[in-house]
Amino acid sequence: MTKFLDLSKDVAELTADLIDIPSVSGHEKKIADVIEESLNRQAHLNVSRFGDAIVARTELGRSERVLLAGHLDTVPLPTASNARGTVPSRWSGETLYGRGATDMKGGVAVQLALTASLTHPQKDLTFVFYDHEEVEAAKSGLLRVATRARSLLTADLAVLLEPTNGYVEAGCNGTLRLRATAEGTAAHSARAWMGENAIHKLAGLLSALQQYEPAAVDVDGLAYREGLNAVGIGGGIAGNVIPDAAYVDINYRFAPDKTPDQAEEHVRQILAGYQLTRTDAAAGARPGLGTPAVQSLVTAVGGAAQPKYGWTDVARFAQMGIPAVNFGPGDALLAHTDDEHVLASEVRKCLGALLDWLT
Amino acid sequence: MTKFLDLSKDVAELTADLIDIPSVSGHEKKIADVIEESLNRQAHLNVSRFGDAIVARTELGRSERVLLAGHLDTVPLPTASNARGTVPSRWSGETLYGRGATDMKGGVAVQLALTASLTHPQKDLTFVFYDHEEVEAAKSGLLRVATRARSLLTADLAVLLEPTNGYVEAGCNGTLRLRATAEGTAAHSARAWMGENAIHKLAGLLSALQQYEPAAVDVDGLAYREGLNAVGIGGGIAGNVIPDAAYVDINYRFAPDKTPDQAEEHVRQILAGYQLTRTDAAAGARPGLGTPAVQSLVTAVGGAAQPKYGWTDVARFAQMGIPAVNFGPGDALLAHTDDEHVLASEVRKCLGALLDWLT
Repeated sequence: MTKFLDLSKDVAELTADLIDIPSVSGHEKKIADVIEESLNRQAHLNVSRFGDAIVARTELGRSERVLLAGHLDTVPLPTASNARGTVPSRWSGETLYGRGATDMKGGVAVQLALTASLTHPQKDLTFVFYDHEEVEAAKSGLLRVATRARSLLTADLAVLLEPTNGYVEAGCNGTLRLRATAEGTAAHSARAWMGENAIHKLAGLLSALQQYEPAAVDVDGLAYREGLNAVGIGGGIAGNVIPDAAYVDINYRFAPDKTPDQAEEHVRQILAGYQLTRTDAAAGARPGLGTPAVQSLVTAVGGAAQPKYGWTDVARFAQMGIPAVNFGPGDALLAHTDDEHVLASEVRKCLGALLDWLT
Repeated sequence: MTKFLDLSKDVAELTADLIDIPSVSGHEKKIADVIEESLNRQAHLNVSRFGDAIVARTELGRSERVLLAGHLDTVPLPTASNARGTVPSRWSGETLYGRGATDMKGGVAVQLALTASLTHPQKDLTFVFYDHEEVEAAKSGLLRVATRARSLLTADLAVLLEPTNGYVEAGCNGTLRLRATAEGTAAHSARAWMGENAIHKLAGLLSALQQYEPAAVDVDGLAYREGLNAVGIGGGIAGNVIPDAAYVDINYRFAPDKTPDQAEEHVRQILAGYQLTRTDAAAGARPGLGTPAVQSLVTAVGGAAQPKYGWTDVARFAQMGIPAVNFGPGDALLAHTDDEHVLASEVRKCLGALLDWLT
């Protein structure tokens, strides 16, 4: 295992190197170690580490500061794989496959290439690499930095290199997780009439989720598509016992016209009669396209701003009062799929656009 | 930990001793060791062991042989407990609580007391203690003995000391287990429309189970109540991924008028459209009340024979051509419940009835 990365190599090949370092949420230490060492070897950067989150800053006294952020972790591997390993990088022509190819090793590779290329940038730069983005908010590495060293994050604009197909994507949906539970009475399954089946009680809840028609909500002229889904289910004691408990984990992705509390109220109406407990929530962010710093980036990279469907940490930056957008290589629709891939040209184009804008 | 049991003590207190030895299915070694040693100390018994199943026989050349059988294992402990420990014995007046109190440490205690009391019985006796009764048939300790040493099981009548409230219970329902699976397409839950939710697809199946009305089937004048239940459910990859797979484990308890194949066909009609795989099946047994050996026991203990709802190993004896009934202390309705208990008087009465019949 190399201890640091060759940041001068082609940024697409650097992406492949990152894919091949295991980094499922909760197992980011190895990739954080390698990145920290790669940053420490650059004299123009001040590097700080907080758990597996790393901040690297230029301190050139420029009048403007741009923050470029990306998360190090990936969602778990496909069911059939080893949950602590990798889906290794694989080239098919100019297409790069592997877990994290789009979400978001390409973006992290662009960040790393920028650290090496921009030793004397026009704007001061802050690079943030962080852990635990794909899991509950309480574990977020970005939140950890904000709590311990908020001043290191101060910037005029934050760019999150989440996959956006090369467009600037503005705002983001919020996300809410609830656990629905059903209770029953255990009994031997040979005398089922003595018990009460908790799993059967989930029938109505799953029907409600299956029949639910998610909305598309207009916010500041951009249409935010929502979604309400079961993301986990469990219950049962043994093959001959009527189950006394069962649960469904539910994820609601809601447009930034609603607060998390309003979102929860909506789900409680849809699933009335079920016992629901909130397990996680993160507010969305309105697009904020009127902000000068955002306009400057949109103008520089071309095209029109798009709505961001997925929750990203732009919402966290928005809460800190820092304008933020998503702009990164790859197709977000491929994120978390078994077919995850990115084109080499997309990663190179994103790097080129940011280099042009920052020099 | 004692290495053997005091078989001369009160049979209800012996029951408490057995409850306090961990014996959840798959963890029967300790209790089998103690029982084997307790039997080996008795000169009138020939003892053989097969895994954690034990056979002890008198060889007195009597014209009749009665087999008395009981399983050593219990179902897992309540959800909140340590799955490898015990729910310890606890006396409340003359009532004994603890996992296995009814199913079936009381019956096993009666077996053990009989080994010590009947050193010169009128009929030759075969005692069978076996593991893995509460799990899939393939692991059954009784089946292991039948495969390796079938001749040791030969008898004119087999009495299974499963809890029957002191009545002779005849025949038994069959049991069938199926796994229903649903498939979908994984995607990021922020873009749920790109995926297909496998958990949502279980809604119709759970509704069908919830609405199903189980039958009570008359066989040879006894009414066998059936049951069709989900006993396990699972699915989900992570809190932000549309699940690509989900399953429900289903247990059908069917009257002995049907073969396992006929039972499976019935479930496939109820759950048409779902992918179902059989994971386990055991035929039931018709009551066979006309058999002379059965009539002798029913006459001796008094009362009328009742139908047995739960599947028990009488079905396995029936398949071997050995008439078999259930007769044991405790209320089967309490089996597998958190409130499991047995009255001391029930255990003593069962022992007394069998002693009277056998001497």
